[in-house]
Amino acid sequence: MEGRLTLSDVEGLAAARMDPYWFAFLQGGAGAERTLAENVGAYGMWRPRQRILCGIESASTHVTVLGHDLGSPVVVAPVAYQRMAHPDGEEGLARAAAAVGSAFCLSTFATASPQDVAAAAPDVVRFLQVYVFRDRSVTRELIAEAVDAGFSAVFLTVDLAVVGARDRERRVTWTFPEESLPSVRRAIAAGATDDALAMMDPALDWAYLEELVASTPVPVVVKGVLDPEDAVLAAEHGAAGIVVSNHGGRQLDGVMPTLEALPAIVDAVGDRLEVLLDGGIRRGTDVAVALALGARAVLAGRLPVWGLAAGGEETARDVLELLREEVSIALHLMGCESPAALSSSCLVPAAR
Amino acid sequence: MEGRLTLSDVEGLAAARMDPYWFAFLQGGAGAERTLAENVGAYGMWRPRQRILCGIESASTHVTVLGHDLGSPVVVAPVAYQRMAHPDGEEGLARAAAAVGSAFCLSTFATASPQDVAAAAPDVVRFLQVYVFRDRSVTRELIAEAVDAGFSAVFLTVDLAVVGARDRERRVTWTFPEESLPSVRRAIAAGATDDALAMMDPALDWAYLEELVASTPVPVVVKGVLDPEDAVLAAEHGAAGIVVSNHGGRQLDGVMPTLEALPAIVDAVGDRLEVLLDGGIRRGTDVAVALALGARAVLAGRLPVWGLAAGGEETARDVLELLREEVSIALHLMGCESPAALSSSCLVPAAR
Amino acid sequence: MEGRLTLSDVEGLAAARMDPYWFAFLQGGAGAERTLAENVGAYGMWRPRQRILCGIESASTHVTVLGHDLGSPVVVAPVAYQRMAHPDGEEGLARAAAAVGSAFCLSTFATASPQDVAAAAPDVVRFLQVYVFRDRSVTRELIAEAVDAGFSAVFLTVDLAVVGARDRERRVTWTFPEESLPSVRRAIAAGATDDALAMMDPALDWAYLEELVASTPVPVVVKGVLDPEDAVLAAEHGAAGIVVSNHGGRQLDGVMPTLEALPAIVDAVGDRLEVLLDGGIRRGTDVAVALALGARAVLAGRLPVWGLAAGGEETARDVLELLREEVSIALHLMGCESPAALSSSCLVPAAR
Amino acid sequence: MEGRLTLSDVEGLAAARMDPYWFAFLQGGAGAERTLAENVGAYGMWRPRQRILCGIESASTHVTVLGHDLGSPVVVAPVAYQRMAHPDGEEGLARAAAAVGSAFCLSTFATASPQDVAAAAPDVVRFLQVYVFRDRSVTRELIAEAVDAGFSAVFLTVDLAVVGARDRERRVTWTFPEESLPSVRRAIAAGATDDALAMMDPALDWAYLEELVASTPVPVVVKGVLDPEDAVLAAEHGAAGIVVSNHGGRQLDGVMPTLEALPAIVDAVGDRLEVLLDGGIRRGTDVAVALALGARAVLAGRLPVWGLAAGGEETARDVLELLREEVSIALHLMGCESPAALSSSCLVPAAR
Repeated sequence: MEGRLTLSDVEGLAAARMDPYWFAFLQGGAGAERTLAENVGAYGMWRPRQRILCGIESASTHVTVLGHDLGSPVVVAPVAYQRMAHPDGEEGLARAAAAVGSAFCLSTFATASPQDVAAAAPDVVRFLQVYVFRDRSVTRELIAEAVDAGFSAVFLTVDLAVVGARDRERRVTWTFPEESLPSVRRAIAAGATDDALAMMDPALDWAYLEELVASTPVPVVVKGVLDPEDAVLAAEHGAAGIVVSNHGGRQLDGVMPTLEALPAIVDAVGDRLEVLLDGGIRRGTDVAVALALGARAVLAGRLPVWGLAAGGEETARDVLELLREEVSIALHLMGCESPAALSSSCLVPAAR
Repeated sequence: MEGRLTLSDVEGLAAARMDPYWFAFLQGGAGAERTLAENVGAYGMWRPRQRILCGIESASTHVTVLGHDLGSPVVVAPVAYQRMAHPDGEEGLARAAAAVGSAFCLSTFATASPQDVAAAAPDVVRFLQVYVFRDRSVTRELIAEAVDAGFSAVFLTVDLAVVGARDRERRVTWTFPEESLPSVRRAIAAGATDDALAMMDPALDWAYLEELVASTPVPVVVKGVLDPEDAVLAAEHGAAGIVVSNHGGRQLDGVMPTLEALPAIVDAVGDRLEVLLDGGIRRGTDVAVALALGARAVLAGRLPVWGLAAGGEETARDVLELLREEVSIALHLMGCESPAALSSSCLVPAAR
Repeated sequence: MEGRLTLSDVEGLAAARMDPYWFAFLQGGAGAERTLAENVGAYGMWRPRQRILCGIESASTHVTVLGHDLGSPVVVAPVAYQRMAHPDGEEGLARAAAAVGSAFCLSTFATASPQDVAAAAPDVVRFLQVYVFRDRSVTRELIAEAVDAGFSAVFLTVDLAVVGARDRERRVTWTFPEESLPSVRRAIAAGATDDALAMMDPALDWAYLEELVASTPVPVVVKGVLDPEDAVLAAEHGAAGIVVSNHGGRQLDGVMPTLEALPAIVDAVGDRLEVLLDGGIRRGTDVAVALALGARAVLAGRLPVWGLAAGGEETARDVLELLREEVSIALHLMGCESPAALSSSCLVPAAR
Repeated sequence: MEGRLTLSDVEGLAAARMDPYWFAFLQGGAGAERTLAENVGAYGMWRPRQRILCGIESASTHVTVLGHDLGSPVVVAPVAYQRMAHPDGEEGLARAAAAVGSAFCLSTFATASPQDVAAAAPDVVRFLQVYVFRDRSVTRELIAEAVDAGFSAVFLTVDLAVVGARDRERRVTWTFPEESLPSVRRAIAAGATDDALAMMDPALDWAYLEELVASTPVPVVVKGVLDPEDAVLAAEHGAAGIVVSNHGGRQLDGVMPTLEALPAIVDAVGDRLEVLLDGGIRRGTDVAVALALGARAVLAGRLPVWGLAAGGEETARDVLELLREEVSIALHLMGCESPAALSSSCLVPAAR
């Protein structure tokens, strides 16, 4: 590479540098991977409006999420096993997020503990993603540990009652290093993912959400909402926010891409809780479109992890910064001084 | 292959292991193979709705077809000449179906007799597909033989008045082993398929269906309905069920993909007879979509035969079991405890 | 090739056997070749309806065109320079047409004279295509010569006021053998096509059509109508028929594919003159769709010339016969005993 | 190349002959280059109507732009750094434009000064494109210099408040020869583009446009309008014309392709100022479609520069002449004697 890193190239760099087994895990979607592709393609359903001569010196990218002022509207999504992408692991990616003003969400299946992350990136706004095991004490203790370590919200993943049919994962086999998964090491013996997944509770219901909200000292965000009816139920059962998500296309193939699902959900609950979105974020214009349609911020998973895989913390930071810069450029060219100026009137539907 | 079999890979494994002549026969469609492709693509017209926190421990895949409780909603379709895919032949595929609770439908052009199948898989729910020869005694005797061997329904194929224009078959030549086609050996001298096809009656009509229903001690299902008007006629002339089918895209190229045809047919006759569907089934979500639109079960042909070709009875069983598992996963993530909970309100049309 | 010729393979065979210069001439379209591709793709806008149990012994393919009973609804289109495809030339292709009951239309830029064709294929129904030169006597004499040789209609090409921008032709250079173009040898010195084209009249108008109709003892068909307003004008100025045509995508790139233009034209003039269509015919189902939408017959150009190139008269005949057979199969599976039974109610629009 | 140059081939010739760094600069768009591609594809949303027997001897391609009679409706767009494509540079391309009756628009980032261009092509109709630096004297002096050199309009680019995210440019590095950029050499030290870009004013507003119009002795055209609201503002603030443009897809990816934006803009301001368009022009039919939808002329950038790169002034002239000829052919086949005869009734929307 003679020139500089680009967002177009980072996936290829990650592919070249990551262990193929773990790259397959990172990339894969469910079934025929239709939703995986459509999550990306859905941004093409909308066109930002180019506006001119607006007299803007530069556009801010600050947003407020769960009361936190963030310098970038892109939160790092809770991707599992980040140390398999690069030795810098979750700590490195959290530091990268801190450097650009992003928040960082730690996965239950992280290869670093909440304390590790807090120690490495004490200033980053950090959230904890949780899966719920049949033995409820595992999740309870993980949350307590994270809250002690300064994590300020719990993201409850609800779209994994059963694991999706992921052929790329089926094709490969891997073993876990003993030190991995500190967060759930009390729940499972060292061993295969399948063991941990099998211990998860497939039958969570809305009553559980209420219990979790009642017993958790920080806000609870429901991650994995794709249907307006469920968004309303989340609001009614105490969620502080939701993530419009189909688990990155890894669960039920064929479901609506997240961006397509967003407007009806914002209509239904946008005034009652904070609506975030993940899925398919590749460029700053994608972020601008999601925000214009009512998302308060977005989560990006594969893209920053590709950066981590391509060159550790430093490249991850470059990726997050490039993305933030592109959001600023997009806002500027749309005539918006900040995300607050975005609305659906800044977009037009693409002709079909 | 280091890892496990996947539904994405089985077609490639079959291609690598089957005699190219017979693989061309299995794969081919009519004309420019537009309907062949659209049968698969039509599932993309619908999106399953992802629902959350439904409190489901696990989803059942049981359905009732013609009075039989089946553990899987996927019936093995009547594909001809299965021994050309693998020596395990129809007997092996019937045993695979039995192992996962699927029903098995035997082709008139099978390379095993009804008795052979009954002996190999005495517990499988089994149906007989029939073509009608100008010499009606051939079909009559085949039905009698099958009924004696415990076959519990006759599937009358009606979309082959004349054989479609299939270029992949034209390109190759093959000869039949003497022992093949025991079911129709009385009708034809050993020889080319063309001979048998030429002996079939091109001018069947609805009166024939009535006669067949009257003279057959088991239910008659009309296979090859694509038009609501014909579905109504089938109900009026005594059919116990219909298969919405375009012969796997092998007959009249350009006709409607089966999934697209399904809703109007269910509207027209769904309360008068059982509606099944074949064509394009590749994943569990395809099955879930077809059932949500009113099919009682689906037939899959190429997919299980690819399994048979890839590794005989055992791989065919793996394929059918993977498919059944994917149906269960799809139902679970759609918030449905069983196929009975599916309806069109579980889907939304895909944006175009 | 172990097996038999197929309609899918004939283009490739022609590419392999023809002089690349002349193949480029045959294949090319105007501009970005969008209309060239869309002519073929337009058939996908419609779906034939599959009907069953219709009691049809076999389907006839006879149609009546300009008073002639034809055994096939596919007329051989007036393609220039057929001897460059194969030494059998126009005589061979006319004989092939005769063998399957097709009519044959001879190009002004033919490499055989009307008399040559009449002598080689005395029984074929034959039409003459004319371009009009500034020196009107050339066209007048050509028509007289053809009428004397038993040609029973004149097809006046009107969509070549100026030659389209054809890059494939620009890229190559060729020279004409002296013996070519007997029909226009009086008009041009032996030499490049460009000379002949430059001698054509760019400013024909409707008054010319009236004169031509008045002075011609056989019916005049206007070839190159794409707009209903022009179809009405053709009827008003005495045309016996029209060919809905965009010159095979070789003239104004981006214009409507012919099949898309057909219905409005049939609505406008279908009761006043005979409507034919060319463009994109590749399979029997294409023919069936065009006839169902109101074309009395279709013209095919590239397809039979590919056959000629692939193996002379014999392969051209195989191609025309395969196409005729596919029409018969399509009609049979649509439940129509003959082309007369086709109507737009035999089709449904393709979902988009 | 045995044959002649074609518009299909010129991009490939340029790719083969240009320095890869500068070719990447020329080709690239912003983000995922969706708008770059859609600018080209948008012409496919419309179909020219083929008309026949119109009695036209030949079609004129003359248009009037800002009071100038031009022999071709294709203006050469202000592409930066033309000497990097070929030593003939802006002088060569201006001479090529003169030869075919096109106008030539000189970029602020030209590698020739206004005087150089005027000396080389004294008869070409020439316009000056301007970016506005924070130091307003730079732009002021450049305009004065150009007006002195006979440039007859100023095109103010307004869609570059901040530079778009262009990955192809990021990937490469280049250095400027000292002699380049004579037009802005007073503003910047010899050095990287980034320096010059950083000196541009990001916060221009409509008041600036008014000042510019008031202080400029030639008409001011606003280049980079994509929204009808901005078109109205441009008219209200004194623009003599606008260019419907998204900067060749190089600025805000995902915005509307220019042709799609054109009709609403023509509706809004077509009677108040002259509407030009750039983006995606590849063939004469593209020009005809844009003119039929209300553009007075179009600007083409990449296409003539490919010609320049492929063979200097001579090939650039061939490209511009081929394009002009194709416009004439398109008009002729649409039944229009001149651009003035074009209107939206000469088009039909493409079926989708």
